[in-house]
Amino acid sequence: MAKKQNVIIAQSGGPTAVINSSACGVIQQAMKSRKFGTIYGAVNGILGVLKEQLFDICAEKPDAIEALKTTPAAAIGSCRYKLKSLQDSKADYERILDVFRAHDIHYFFYAGGNDSMDTSDKVNKLAADSRYELTCIGIPKTIDNDLGFTDHCPGYGSTAKYIATCAMEAARDTEALYTTDTCTILEVMGRNAGWIAAATGLARSSAEDAPHLIYLPERPFNSDKFVEDVKLVLKEFKRVFIVAGEGLRDETGQYITADTGEFAKDSFGHTQLGGVAEILKAIVEKQVGIKARFNKLGTNQRSAMHFASLTDRDEAYMCGREAVKAALKGENGKMITLIRQSSKPYKCVTGLAPLSDVAAAEKIVPDEYINPQANFVTDAMLDYVRPLVQGEVNVPIGKNGLPVFMRFEKKLVDKKLPSYM
Amino acid sequence: MAKKQNVIIAQSGGPTAVINSSACGVIQQAMKSRKFGTIYGAVNGILGVLKEQLFDICAEKPDAIEALKTTPAAAIGSCRYKLKSLQDSKADYERILDVFRAHDIHYFFYAGGNDSMDTSDKVNKLAADSRYELTCIGIPKTIDNDLGFTDHCPGYGSTAKYIATCAMEAARDTEALYTTDTCTILEVMGRNAGWIAAATGLARSSAEDAPHLIYLPERPFNSDKFVEDVKLVLKEFKRVFIVAGEGLRDETGQYITADTGEFAKDSFGHTQLGGVAEILKAIVEKQVGIKARFNKLGTNQRSAMHFASLTDRDEAYMCGREAVKAALKGENGKMITLIRQSSKPYKCVTGLAPLSDVAAAEKIVPDEYINPQANFVTDAMLDYVRPLVQGEVNVPIGKNGLPVFMRFEKKLVDKKLPSYM
Repeated sequence: MAKKQNVIIAQSGGPTAVINSSACGVIQQAMKSRKFGTIYGAVNGILGVLKEQLFDICAEKPDAIEALKTTPAAAIGSCRYKLKSLQDSKADYERILDVFRAHDIHYFFYAGGNDSMDTSDKVNKLAADSRYELTCIGIPKTIDNDLGFTDHCPGYGSTAKYIATCAMEAARDTEALYTTDTCTILEVMGRNAGWIAAATGLARSSAEDAPHLIYLPERPFNSDKFVEDVKLVLKEFKRVFIVAGEGLRDETGQYITADTGEFAKDSFGHTQLGGVAEILKAIVEKQVGIKARFNKLGTNQRSAMHFASLTDRDEAYMCGREAVKAALKGENGKMITLIRQSSKPYKCVTGLAPLSDVAAAEKIVPDEYINPQANFVTDAMLDYVRPLVQGEVNVPIGKNGLPVFMRFEKKLVDKKLPSYM
Repeated sequence: MAKKQNVIIAQSGGPTAVINSSACGVIQQAMKSRKFGTIYGAVNGILGVLKEQLFDICAEKPDAIEALKTTPAAAIGSCRYKLKSLQDSKADYERILDVFRAHDIHYFFYAGGNDSMDTSDKVNKLAADSRYELTCIGIPKTIDNDLGFTDHCPGYGSTAKYIATCAMEAARDTEALYTTDTCTILEVMGRNAGWIAAATGLARSSAEDAPHLIYLPERPFNSDKFVEDVKLVLKEFKRVFIVAGEGLRDETGQYITADTGEFAKDSFGHTQLGGVAEILKAIVEKQVGIKARFNKLGTNQRSAMHFASLTDRDEAYMCGREAVKAALKGENGKMITLIRQSSKPYKCVTGLAPLSDVAAAEKIVPDEYINPQANFVTDAMLDYVRPLVQGEVNVPIGKNGLPVFMRFEKKLVDKKLPSYM
């Protein structure tokens, strides 16, 4: 090929501590290969493509690119813009190809979850139909760890390490102050899959350690059973530390946060429309009669660079690098996967799975990782997650005593097309 | 004195990442001095004294004592039991002296906040009146940083470092995903004093960095002004990251969380009885019309050993050690204070203040640390807090990839008195 072809790299969905490491892997490997023209970043994922908001990543400072490895969230910019089927979102998909054509882009690296893989897959199919030469490689990313065809997802290990540590730490607070603050509830992310909640099981080294109870969205939540569980723990340890996934549902499949019944009312009879933690707090206070408090780390659990897993960070980088290598080997329409070759010692390599397969699958916590009482995880779960949280990332600390993060300058390239949205 | 006298050490109130370091300072200095008999820990602060639940700390493993320096919360046990005046809680104070007498305890080291200093002071006065030889030394402890007569309080620096880091990190998440999640509110502790919220100002190195707005309980909260503030930031940066103290009050002095007016109602007209963050979220969503989310770290912000400030940790240890030295020098009825001799370079030594003075004072964030718009802090505030967050504590990591904390065995000594409570 005479003229080197251009590349787009984009990030999508809820950020993680290490999605920037994947971007770094793509950028550094692509630059090193000398096989490409310009490497564009699409500001805010597919939205940036649609809006033709692109910037030349190689024009950014090399220090900034390197510092992606220690900067959380999505430095190129992310989005939650959902494209539908090729039929229903046809204009969008065609616009994407138009932008690619206008900027001579023939490689598309997209880091994200199911939806992003679906978008990549459909863009790729439209390109093939239109005889536009395009290579699409997906890079897995999600703290939820719910992508199929991969042992685990970059992003998950860091959240697992951080949230399990937070469970340990807050539990020591409850242990110290149990005579008044007897119950603490830690609400964690994971609406449909309980991988994050399950990881907090690592925090428990002895029976009295927290968490004492873990509730996953994989099992229907029953408040009577819950009250029983809490009372049993209280009897044994005089305190109770509970981890709950944000997406708990009752036996009918309805989110317990959508409940308008008795438990959703406070002592004044007002309906409380809070998250899962607030509902559980209300149940504990009313039905068990002890004071409960809750911690809801929210986006801090997916951006905690300061205590990210080194294993996760390095694998995220590896996925980015391998995406470029795969593209150069002629692979197309695939997502990089992680294949665990061994747990002891831990060995993990990359593989490939068709984008369309990944897009359609959602991996929840399997039965053998959940105890029969549906209130904790099994050793098999702990063996699964333990290798993923090993090692700490050495984040540079600035004069303010805080981590130092990079930020791209993002000088947008001139638009070649009329505005679209 | 022929027979060596016994010692009690106790911890009180909301735990911190470094109150155990203060305990370690007391224990190690007391053991090193060889001037004392048995060093007892009172399980759960003054409650443990009242209940005669004491354990011999020197019988614990030396490793466990050393590991206090890297273990958060209160390893001896804490409480929120509040004693009133000598008159109103006379039986309690007399019981305390009875327990001291029964176990030949003549030294009382109490780490805590205003209430604990008050308790120590009153026990001390009753002892003097009863001609019981007793030395009481208080050790400052509070993440709220609201004790008077000391430049700052052990515990504050670690929370400041962690919460400012969390603000930086979550803000990068908002920055990445601003096209959907446009506003994030971080609710932080500090019901009457805004020191913790104020510390997050350190996270902002450039104008676009977060937090964009900081609201302290020292200033009345006005929702119209707040909406204006948010709109201005949005216009400039397309996103807004807000830090709010949990104890915000309106112009009438009422906590905004007690509000039953329009802003406290959700879109169904139901009253929302959440925290400050939920109220602000509701205001932003209704009045500004953008999606908002909130993070409420709860007890994680006072137990985050994994990213504690080394300066804070070392000062906490120093306060414990100096408490023992002061007692041996014949000081009594005093609290150890921290005296900042210089900010650049930072130099801090200990001093002493009468317990009764400390008990009566509450130090809020002074006017010169808050900007005129009452929505951010001044450089003077940042200069004040910057030295307190320097350095990281090297916490041991176990095979699960998580920190390793110690736990005392707490073999309780035989009771010599009838039950009291």
